[in-house]
Amino acid sequence: MKATVHVFLKAGVLDVQGKAVESALHGLGWPDVSAVRVGRVIEFDLVAQDAATADAEVEAMCDRLLANTVIESFRVEITP
Amino acid sequence: MKATVHVFLKAGVLDVQGKAVESALHGLGWPDVSAVRVGRVIEFDLVAQDAATADAEVEAMCDRLLANTVIESFRVEITP
Repeated sequence: MKATVHVFLKAGVLDVQGKAVESALHGLGWPDVSAVRVGRVIEFDLVAQDAATADAEVEAMCDRLLANTVIESFRVEITP
Repeated sequence: MKATVHVFLKAGVLDVQGKAVESALHGLGWPDVSAVRVGRVIEFDLVAQDAATADAEVEAMCDRLLANTVIESFRVEITP
């Protein structure tokens, strides 16, 4: 199965990288761009009996390694 | 409109971050994980007349700022 994990800073946390990108886009001539958020996406293959098992495994991976859950939220997608 | 840009290293380029994550997951007890790729995802709002215009604008942003097209590929999604 294929897992895709999106990791973003939580809503209340200042996204410095997003602010830098937004400022750069404004400077390059796109003043209408707003609310820029920069996150990570992690894709991988894994072996699991079914999608529910895979989802639980990947959530555990996020909690332990892939996301800093104090300041980041994550979303898991499993495709067969 | 809302734009989502996924940026990944091209297939032939060594993904050092992905390799590190894969190795860490193996060490944490998930030996069945493979082909880990780590990329960036950039989300933002923009003003555009229609989805096609927005798509063209965002592709231009990727070429100029958001992706290093020598070693990275990108995928743009526009949602109203």
